[in-house]
Amino acid sequence: MDLKVYIQELGQNARLAGRDMAKANTGAKNQALEEIASVILARQDELIQTNSKDMEAGRANGLEPALLDRLQLTTARINSMAEGLRQVATLADPIGEIANMAYRPTGIQVGQMRVPLGVVGIIYESRPNVTADAAALCIKSGNATILRGGSEASHSNQAIAACIQAGLKSAGLPVEAVQVIETTDRAAVGELLTMPEYVDVIIPRGGKSLIERVSAEARMPVIKHLDGICHVYIDDEADMNKAIAIAYNSKTQRYGVCNAMECLLIAESIAEQALNQLAPKYKDAGVEIRGCEKSKAILKDIELASEEDYFTEYLAPIMSLKIVSDLDGAIAHINHYGSMHTDSIVTENISKARRFMAEVDSSSVIVNASTRFADGFEYGLGAEIGISTDKFHARGPVGLHGLTSQKYIVIGDGHIKQ
Amino acid sequence: MDLKVYIQELGQNARLAGRDMAKANTGAKNQALEEIASVILARQDELIQTNSKDMEAGRANGLEPALLDRLQLTTARINSMAEGLRQVATLADPIGEIANMAYRPTGIQVGQMRVPLGVVGIIYESRPNVTADAAALCIKSGNATILRGGSEASHSNQAIAACIQAGLKSAGLPVEAVQVIETTDRAAVGELLTMPEYVDVIIPRGGKSLIERVSAEARMPVIKHLDGICHVYIDDEADMNKAIAIAYNSKTQRYGVCNAMECLLIAESIAEQALNQLAPKYKDAGVEIRGCEKSKAILKDIELASEEDYFTEYLAPIMSLKIVSDLDGAIAHINHYGSMHTDSIVTENISKARRFMAEVDSSSVIVNASTRFADGFEYGLGAEIGISTDKFHARGPVGLHGLTSQKYIVIGDGHIKQ
Repeated sequence: MDLKVYIQELGQNARLAGRDMAKANTGAKNQALEEIASVILARQDELIQTNSKDMEAGRANGLEPALLDRLQLTTARINSMAEGLRQVATLADPIGEIANMAYRPTGIQVGQMRVPLGVVGIIYESRPNVTADAAALCIKSGNATILRGGSEASHSNQAIAACIQAGLKSAGLPVEAVQVIETTDRAAVGELLTMPEYVDVIIPRGGKSLIERVSAEARMPVIKHLDGICHVYIDDEADMNKAIAIAYNSKTQRYGVCNAMECLLIAESIAEQALNQLAPKYKDAGVEIRGCEKSKAILKDIELASEEDYFTEYLAPIMSLKIVSDLDGAIAHINHYGSMHTDSIVTENISKARRFMAEVDSSSVIVNASTRFADGFEYGLGAEIGISTDKFHARGPVGLHGLTSQKYIVIGDGHIKQ
Repeated sequence: MDLKVYIQELGQNARLAGRDMAKANTGAKNQALEEIASVILARQDELIQTNSKDMEAGRANGLEPALLDRLQLTTARINSMAEGLRQVATLADPIGEIANMAYRPTGIQVGQMRVPLGVVGIIYESRPNVTADAAALCIKSGNATILRGGSEASHSNQAIAACIQAGLKSAGLPVEAVQVIETTDRAAVGELLTMPEYVDVIIPRGGKSLIERVSAEARMPVIKHLDGICHVYIDDEADMNKAIAIAYNSKTQRYGVCNAMECLLIAESIAEQALNQLAPKYKDAGVEIRGCEKSKAILKDIELASEEDYFTEYLAPIMSLKIVSDLDGAIAHINHYGSMHTDSIVTENISKARRFMAEVDSSSVIVNASTRFADGFEYGLGAEIGISTDKFHARGPVGLHGLTSQKYIVIGDGHIKQ
């Protein structure tokens, strides 16, 4: 079949299914999520068998071990997919929520009702569990979704999609509410990105090159973050124990994640004291430090950081370091070199904490805690479909509410405008 | 000077001024608004004199009387501009509002803080008072703005801009927070629309061709509505007195506005009763009715509506009319022919009212009141910068909050991730 026609058909199906999903009641949506979880558990042998085809092909194509690991479905991962679906079922239904309902002087009552966005396109890479996670959030938020997984996971994604559609069917919801693009042709993504008439928002989940391509080509809004160049600033009024713990945890708790610290900023007057405690800990953890002239004067055996380093998201046991004059220097550095993702200050001074929160232009600003807390689960969103560093629509971790909008509702009793 | 360089400079200035505006405290922003109002009142003779240059040029260029009227500055209009500025000063400052602050099981506190979008571009047509109105909302919401008014109002807009900058200066805020593009070269708009690095959102205010051009060219998000094809549906369980009043008021209270009714839908079983009362009233008001076959069978002397009519925003004493089977027919008609702007149902049945509110996919859905209530002032937003029929970011009338975003804030006490 012609690719364009095929993707357009998915779009038309999704648009129609989206109308039914918008009206679906909470009970039916939760039932679908529970049914999908049951089908996934019931079919776990089949899923693992299907996944082994993707794994074999991956090995044959020389996929890196880390990617192969992400591709694999195990009993534990299948259980956790089912668990994720059931957790989304327990979340409050955002659709139909009415907020701010109040009488106006004319006598009309005005409020805002939460509604789905419509059709959500999600483009993701090798992890097949995203198929179930993303579908769950779209179902609960009353949206239809078109999913496009990585080609290396295509058999696994199709098998999971079949479970999802079986679950939707038993709950009496349209199976076209969740569609997985079947072809592995890369041009399919191009078609998906250029039909704003059928797709209301696109969420790319994956590496920087995927996100850049999607942002450049999409004709509809995109929920995304490109980089996570996260900072910790140790203020001269920091509690040093907290500062050491937070700066160490933010870098080393996990390296390959977007909310890991990539650059440490320290106020000049306490830099020596802080670095004398921190440097040996980083060294033991195998973290390479690239610092400014002033920090090299203290630490001696570190590399000098280049301008480029301060713009780099290492996602590895490497970090940049800069000694700044004070809070102003820290804020200026973050707003210039940062990526508006997550930045943390360690200070006991409330006035400085307030300034940092107000003036650092990032989607998450943190006081006296690790940057690693910046995610939807830690924030209590229940689940996360992505993180946005943009300001329009959604900012920071995006959960169910990010997949919705609010319309105005007005109730009168025969009111006319004078 | 080269046009591109000039517009880029405005963008750079706006970006820098936006940073200061984001930090500006409520007192300074309110003071600026009050000062601008005072300067405008103090310079009213000068403003009227300057405006007369635009009026003369307009007459010489054969501008239509309606446009000439919109262009004119009178003492009353200048007073109302000043009044508008002072009203915005009385509104609550949205910036820095912290919402949903709550403890998480880990012990961190998570909430959301409201922040400005950054730089707002506004492109508008002949009414010079928009210069002051739009500037006021941007100042209060902590944004910088670049304004581009109609070329026919350019002298008036520059004179008002001078008042605004004088007011900003006395309040100690950067004068570049509000910049008016000086050249009347149309290419300036093209430059403005293609610098997403300096402009975070564009708001076009004017006719359909302006909005279509802006939507097609803009490289940043656009807050807009294209059409206001608004419906009133009279249900078979409507209170007939309310129905007559609402259907009449929605069409005739004012014709040239986006929230006027353009199409009346009536449930078949009460169509004859409703039309027998309504048709003479519309006739007296000089409203032309274009109806379906069934309505022509009742009213006889009306024109038949074409398919095209049901997609038309007349903005004139013309309306389309359709007799539908029931609520389902009304919802299907509105979701197909409507423009997602404002639609109203008249019914005493709460179950039908609930369905209409949930299933009609418009930015304002109304029960038992006139469509004419759909605006920011009636909704209590205090002021309105536009109406959005999109779902992303802002929907319906857009006030101060639509010019803001929310970032996450996290407060801990040395918390690290386990």
